[in-house]
Amino acid sequence: MYGLINRFTTHPGRRDELIAAMTGDAGPLPGCRSFVVAKDPADPDAVWITEVWDSEEDWRASLDLPAVRASIDKALSLIASFGERTVTLPVSLRP
Amino acid sequence: MYGLINRFTTHPGRRDELIAAMTGDAGPLPGCRSFVVAKDPADPDAVWITEVWDSEEDWRASLDLPAVRASIDKALSLIASFGERTVTLPVSLRP
Repeated sequence: MYGLINRFTTHPGRRDELIAAMTGDAGPLPGCRSFVVAKDPADPDAVWITEVWDSEEDWRASLDLPAVRASIDKALSLIASFGERTVTLPVSLRP
Repeated sequence: MYGLINRFTTHPGRRDELIAAMTGDAGPLPGCRSFVVAKDPADPDAVWITEVWDSEEDWRASLDLPAVRASIDKALSLIASFGERTVTLPVSLRP
């Protein structure tokens, strides 16, 4: 499996819009095992995105889905800075 | 919801044992929405644990479950250092 941990900081006061953009109905996401959007409690403009995919290829293919493409374009307009991007190799996912 | 992102580094060569300890059958975990154990591809001794719980209380209660207690005790014997511990507030979890 292929995992990602990302932290984004929005322009001041725009976090809720980013969350809305990243949690809209993107339709089926083939190979997506987990996609979590979370607020950073220590920073009112920061979000954490943690993802698990069956493969890196599945994750890359998702970037071409129209709904995902649209949410990324919207998100990019709201993001002021990108935090550390971590790739992981999940070995277990429950429940 | 309540989320955690943790990175642990084991004593040299002990990662597989830590993964085994953290992925054993702990039985039902009330309130656990997601528990991911992942290898860090950049460090052969490091693992990432990302968790989502219905509440912080559910997470705390899980620490008292015998099977969880046993896996934590085993894990502690294998862990050489604890990386940054991040608390998050998940707002969306799919699928």
